[in-house]
Amino acid sequence: MEQIKMILDCDTGHDDAIALLLAAAHPSLKLLGVTVTAGNQVLERTVENTLNVCQHMGIDVPVYRGCDRPLVREQVVAGDIHGKTGLDGPVFEKRVREAEKEHAVSFLIRTLLNSDGDITLVPTAPLTNIAMAMRLEPAIIPKIRRICLMGGAVGAGNATPAAEFNILADPEAAHIVFTSGVPIVMMGLDLTNRTLADMDVIRRMEAIGNRAGKLFSDIMRFTFNTQRLNGLSAGPVHDVTAVAYLAAPELFKTQSMNVEIDLTHGPCYGRTVCDINSRTGKKANALVGLDVDLPAFWDLVEETLRRY
Amino acid sequence: MEQIKMILDCDTGHDDAIALLLAAAHPSLKLLGVTVTAGNQVLERTVENTLNVCQHMGIDVPVYRGCDRPLVREQVVAGDIHGKTGLDGPVFEKRVREAEKEHAVSFLIRTLLNSDGDITLVPTAPLTNIAMAMRLEPAIIPKIRRICLMGGAVGAGNATPAAEFNILADPEAAHIVFTSGVPIVMMGLDLTNRTLADMDVIRRMEAIGNRAGKLFSDIMRFTFNTQRLNGLSAGPVHDVTAVAYLAAPELFKTQSMNVEIDLTHGPCYGRTVCDINSRTGKKANALVGLDVDLPAFWDLVEETLRRY
Amino acid sequence: MEQIKMILDCDTGHDDAIALLLAAAHPSLKLLGVTVTAGNQVLERTVENTLNVCQHMGIDVPVYRGCDRPLVREQVVAGDIHGKTGLDGPVFEKRVREAEKEHAVSFLIRTLLNSDGDITLVPTAPLTNIAMAMRLEPAIIPKIRRICLMGGAVGAGNATPAAEFNILADPEAAHIVFTSGVPIVMMGLDLTNRTLADMDVIRRMEAIGNRAGKLFSDIMRFTFNTQRLNGLSAGPVHDVTAVAYLAAPELFKTQSMNVEIDLTHGPCYGRTVCDINSRTGKKANALVGLDVDLPAFWDLVEETLRRY
Amino acid sequence: MEQIKMILDCDTGHDDAIALLLAAAHPSLKLLGVTVTAGNQVLERTVENTLNVCQHMGIDVPVYRGCDRPLVREQVVAGDIHGKTGLDGPVFEKRVREAEKEHAVSFLIRTLLNSDGDITLVPTAPLTNIAMAMRLEPAIIPKIRRICLMGGAVGAGNATPAAEFNILADPEAAHIVFTSGVPIVMMGLDLTNRTLADMDVIRRMEAIGNRAGKLFSDIMRFTFNTQRLNGLSAGPVHDVTAVAYLAAPELFKTQSMNVEIDLTHGPCYGRTVCDINSRTGKKANALVGLDVDLPAFWDLVEETLRRY
Repeated sequence: MEQIKMILDCDTGHDDAIALLLAAAHPSLKLLGVTVTAGNQVLERTVENTLNVCQHMGIDVPVYRGCDRPLVREQVVAGDIHGKTGLDGPVFEKRVREAEKEHAVSFLIRTLLNSDGDITLVPTAPLTNIAMAMRLEPAIIPKIRRICLMGGAVGAGNATPAAEFNILADPEAAHIVFTSGVPIVMMGLDLTNRTLADMDVIRRMEAIGNRAGKLFSDIMRFTFNTQRLNGLSAGPVHDVTAVAYLAAPELFKTQSMNVEIDLTHGPCYGRTVCDINSRTGKKANALVGLDVDLPAFWDLVEETLRRY
Repeated sequence: MEQIKMILDCDTGHDDAIALLLAAAHPSLKLLGVTVTAGNQVLERTVENTLNVCQHMGIDVPVYRGCDRPLVREQVVAGDIHGKTGLDGPVFEKRVREAEKEHAVSFLIRTLLNSDGDITLVPTAPLTNIAMAMRLEPAIIPKIRRICLMGGAVGAGNATPAAEFNILADPEAAHIVFTSGVPIVMMGLDLTNRTLADMDVIRRMEAIGNRAGKLFSDIMRFTFNTQRLNGLSAGPVHDVTAVAYLAAPELFKTQSMNVEIDLTHGPCYGRTVCDINSRTGKKANALVGLDVDLPAFWDLVEETLRRY
Repeated sequence: MEQIKMILDCDTGHDDAIALLLAAAHPSLKLLGVTVTAGNQVLERTVENTLNVCQHMGIDVPVYRGCDRPLVREQVVAGDIHGKTGLDGPVFEKRVREAEKEHAVSFLIRTLLNSDGDITLVPTAPLTNIAMAMRLEPAIIPKIRRICLMGGAVGAGNATPAAEFNILADPEAAHIVFTSGVPIVMMGLDLTNRTLADMDVIRRMEAIGNRAGKLFSDIMRFTFNTQRLNGLSAGPVHDVTAVAYLAAPELFKTQSMNVEIDLTHGPCYGRTVCDINSRTGKKANALVGLDVDLPAFWDLVEETLRRY
Repeated sequence: MEQIKMILDCDTGHDDAIALLLAAAHPSLKLLGVTVTAGNQVLERTVENTLNVCQHMGIDVPVYRGCDRPLVREQVVAGDIHGKTGLDGPVFEKRVREAEKEHAVSFLIRTLLNSDGDITLVPTAPLTNIAMAMRLEPAIIPKIRRICLMGGAVGAGNATPAAEFNILADPEAAHIVFTSGVPIVMMGLDLTNRTLADMDVIRRMEAIGNRAGKLFSDIMRFTFNTQRLNGLSAGPVHDVTAVAYLAAPELFKTQSMNVEIDLTHGPCYGRTVCDINSRTGKKANALVGLDVDLPAFWDLVEETLRRY
């Protein structure tokens, strides 16, 4: 079977870290590189976290430092969920891995232009890097096979009543991506909030007995507590769904619809306005995830972690 | 048992008509008057429809003509759902009933000022009349016992992906009401979309064998078809829930939360931004209906219609 | 010569007070009544000020209490310009004059409906009363001969860089008025900022030697100082221009253009967007004052004050 | 005298072409490069026009192709003013000059990072290139000595009643630049609309008798007519003022103030909200040009053109 080429664009972050574990080890995925942006924490932290995970797990893909702030709005981070480092919980060895010298946006442009149009972008972060690349070099747009992202919501948000964090953190970047014409798969809170790593899940991954299972456990025990403050019974592995969809789309129930980003500066700023009942007459631009086969999803996670 | 004094503020409308049937006949409710506004159709139509229902059913309460357009925005009506008259379906006798000379807003102000603070307003329409009354005579605000309304949504809207029709039709009026400090009960789409008058329900009410059951059937057979165009399997009796809550609050699951109206002119204009997970730190201003005990609800409807 | 019938709608205020002096005494004007709204100060203050001026000057017209807050936005007042009472400076005798029992909005509706369409409204305040009347009884709209208002600006605002106080204090009311179809004359800051009551003007009016000249002086000596804080060399008699235009339109240079009210909640909220170069293709809805013959204007003021 | 190092960022354009003539020939300026963006016309045209002018006049500086669309909004161009090519009027020889391979944004970043902080950016176009460079590499921000731009207005706009074309064409980019902390000089319409190249000016430049005077004449005869459609008596050389200010700031009257870009999508979208009377309490971020010594300005233009 041919592998699906992908670039992970992340702001590591707890669930980003698990998403990275899957992206690097799932047999049907070929991870070409990891681009990092600010989001869950400031860029310095998210790059550090990404490199730490790569070094700790022996993931040998280049890591690129990207944009350190959103396009237009003032920066927001999610320190309440991800802690001071952005990946509080696990303890890593002294870091020797370094990010590449090339800018993430430059890597995206160069790689896409040189590709056969067979690369999928998997953003699990604010869409700043990808939006910047699209505006700097519009010729990449037809070269992107698909963008399979974690972000947004049909229903309630998490960062505000209306908006999910990744989109709220850079709504204008999201607007650029959602109006680019590139096929989009959107894994939003409606579905990702169901992927709760409760104690059963945590113990199951821990029981794998390898470094990956241990890391999963160290990571998810931390958000197990912070996310509970948000009314969830455990911490979801949001970002993992975007990678999982690429590997096993059959696990997901999706619906094609128009998604518009609210760019007003009112209470719905950053909302993904999902026309789930086709009220606007606007053309569908995204395949929106609505549900996931949870047992099969956790099997996929476990099987992939076992490969480490 | 003392009856709950209420004024129904409606834009009749199919579901408004049923709501009126309940308000006028439920033993625990005392309907002091009916104020009418534009909404589902233009004011001329909604007044006509209200008077027709009153005359047809022998409902002997004064009917007041209110505002013929929203406060600020351009007028929208819901001709697609309610037809050209706003109450397509039933056929009425030649009308002799007339609306009162007094303006609805004036009736609201006069009645509330003279009350002991024991009157509940039940709007099943855009909130124009009530907002106008509040601005014209702020002294009524502490006199309103409660506002129990049909409108809004925690989740998806129906008129747009973000907004429910009654709120979208006059967002600024809704803002005035929701920031007034009056205790609000909001019956939104999350719950009202579940009150589907399917063929079983229609036949059950028809089987009562009286004028009220027949009218229910004539009315709901019409929206049975128009609402199906909106992806619902039958026509919901949205507005009835606001009256039913007043009569039997124990049938409803509610949650107290902050609700803010989106007044931007973007894609979420008119959305009731419901802070269901307490993300904003803003004080709760509404008790939002989340679910209803459907069998008990239909029993309530049937029992009340039987009283005619 | 037939007198022009007018109703003054004010938020007295220093310049409102002078406008009232002119409206009550100019031989070509017939002042039918004075309606008061909140604006320069809270309603209690602006009503008090209006009654004080009427009593002090023996102006025998009915005064009506109107709306105490703007339609949609939070209330703002101009205490920095007009002081704690809204008319700091002059000292009045103990007040015996009372406002009418009827609400200003009700007076406007009743008077306009009973008129021959020959009444001009002269608002020198936020447009809340007039907007409320238009929405409560749309039948008054074709009955209004013209609205000749003080408010707005083609250029810079005074309350914010973009907006003039009267419009900023109730932008939604202004929107209702400017989109009503009634012919509008708008006296904005471009012109009113030139009507500076400097010491020469103040001494000239004082020299008239009557009660009116003395009141002018007491009033304008106060804003002489507060307005200087705003970068003006003296206090303008803004509101007087709206009355003066009605009495002597030939003193003013005007241009017909489209004026739209900015209803966004951004930095231009409440701006009168004046399409002075016809860039939008939108139909003209206002005659906008651009300049005034100042010597003739002060002559008009003096001659009118001499009549007391 | 040490020359002032500058990069011209333009969307050539009639007045851009004249600005380029000045930037390349004024003895106190050292033009390091020309970056081009879309604006007056699409990028393909504005690059073509820039190269044509350089080749025609023997201006030997590198020209860099930049962004082909605004950051967030839909693209607008000014075909009504500048014609189909964006520089209708003059006829050029067959072009052999080519743009550099490097992207304008990359050139800006590289040059600024390698500089001693002594380079002034002179944008006479939408601010897309500069905003992109700032977001891609924030380290350039403290390296920019100053941004001296043509754009915006204290008073009326030209593209809309509220907004000037360069800012309206990319308001979000302007927001990034105006909030960057870099010292800004803004030459807006209040001043640039006065730099009318009337027939006297055109004939005077033509009378120089060289290629530069002839090009000035060919160019300004075209906008002499198109700008008259906008109510001006001739075509202004807007963009030239930004270069002229750098060479001779003493010709300009300026005032320091806060300038905020309106990012709402209402009627003032893209307005430079200039706090000329210090109403907001916000810190000054721009030196805004209010007037120019016109005779000295035209002398400067003539003297510079004579150097060709």
